[in-house]
Amino acid sequence: MNLDNIRVVLVNTTHPGNIGGVARAMKNMGLSSLTLVEPKAFPSPDADARASGATDLLEGAAIVSTLEEAVADAHLVVGTSARGRHIPWPIMDPHEMAGVIAKAQSGSASSHVALVFGREDRGLTNEELQLCHIHVHIPSVESFSSLNIAAAVQVLAYECRMAYLANQTAVQQAPQWGTEWDADLAEHKELELFYEHLERVLIDVDFLDPEKPRQLMPRLRRLFQRALLDKIEINVLRGMLTHIEKKRRR
Amino acid sequence: MNLDNIRVVLVNTTHPGNIGGVARAMKNMGLSSLTLVEPKAFPSPDADARASGATDLLEGAAIVSTLEEAVADAHLVVGTSARGRHIPWPIMDPHEMAGVIAKAQSGSASSHVALVFGREDRGLTNEELQLCHIHVHIPSVESFSSLNIAAAVQVLAYECRMAYLANQTAVQQAPQWGTEWDADLAEHKELELFYEHLERVLIDVDFLDPEKPRQLMPRLRRLFQRALLDKIEINVLRGMLTHIEKKRRR
Repeated sequence: MNLDNIRVVLVNTTHPGNIGGVARAMKNMGLSSLTLVEPKAFPSPDADARASGATDLLEGAAIVSTLEEAVADAHLVVGTSARGRHIPWPIMDPHEMAGVIAKAQSGSASSHVALVFGREDRGLTNEELQLCHIHVHIPSVESFSSLNIAAAVQVLAYECRMAYLANQTAVQQAPQWGTEWDADLAEHKELELFYEHLERVLIDVDFLDPEKPRQLMPRLRRLFQRALLDKIEINVLRGMLTHIEKKRRR
Repeated sequence: MNLDNIRVVLVNTTHPGNIGGVARAMKNMGLSSLTLVEPKAFPSPDADARASGATDLLEGAAIVSTLEEAVADAHLVVGTSARGRHIPWPIMDPHEMAGVIAKAQSGSASSHVALVFGREDRGLTNEELQLCHIHVHIPSVESFSSLNIAAAVQVLAYECRMAYLANQTAVQQAPQWGTEWDADLAEHKELELFYEHLERVLIDVDFLDPEKPRQLMPRLRRLFQRALLDKIEINVLRGMLTHIEKKRRR
């Protein structure tokens, strides 16, 4: 578990005070890397006030214009989500999420993790959620389910820190596919190139109708995202697609 | 575990906005009982604004003048504390605390619990901490250890809710990818037919050389096995392979 490689990504945050609250929660829990995707108002005195001493995180924050940029080099992308999306995705609670992060980083501590938080009023879009490997849901009361964004960051950062401290002190549990994995995890941009390639081939063999795509690509994405592909696997899959294309052309 | 019998007690809170943030965090996690010991400014529009729909908790809040009054009928009093107090006290992390509360309430669900939070700038006094049964410390970074009070309430309330939900579902087996998956898992024989099909196609497109198979099929197997394919996904994958074959034959 390497807290330095866990990045918090805030998408289109409206209230700068919330960004300050997020920075404070992060610094309290030992996280330091913050990326803002098109914040409505930043920098801002409200952000500084709520940060209460965590202004160094605000000063160091990266500002980018798309979520894709924010997660381009991430090996594991975690999206925060309310329940009840169109296509169910592997969804876990914050404690389980911390376990997955610990496993992902146990093989190579340099695995980069992005925790992605959506807009105050409507969270992440379905398209944004499909960039993620796993979705995490803070188990709130159904009739009053929307947490303040700084509170949500506090909970996930707390679970990361608990896992980090447990790692420091306890004998590690055997990871599912962590420690002795034989290849590094694929990066976000490699995955996206694979999905583009896959889509081209599926259209080419008339399996995917671009006029009527139904839920084919989201389903395939969900499958491969939850498997957390490694670099060898992504090469194998790309090689497979290339061979299918070559045979078609002849 | 009975969330209705867990009361949050705030001692001498200075900023009414924080009281609102506390109310929201409580309501998100299913807590409803709030007691304020001599708040500096309450009620207040700032409190209502930050409560964001949890104003019912603010309206129902009890206001008392001493901590003793606030905890008079409590069976278990939990004080939040920074480390390094004058007299060491049984100190636990929030997860352990939730376990203690669950045990305390497992005998009689009517056991009343009070979670006590101190002033924004200096927490609880030694005298106040000595009214508590246990002290809980949120494991923050030593050099930046003071959480916002609403963030601290969020973490403890979250752990209470996690313990409550674990209690509720203790008998049920935890499903792999959350409760609301949309398809049954594929059966072993369906998987094997898929692997045979995949292998045929890979040979057909000259990606897999049967004379020199290397580790190709084992790698692909490992990938799909760990994803735990469902029945829709296996049909999508089989359909893909069938279309690739059809195109080849023409």
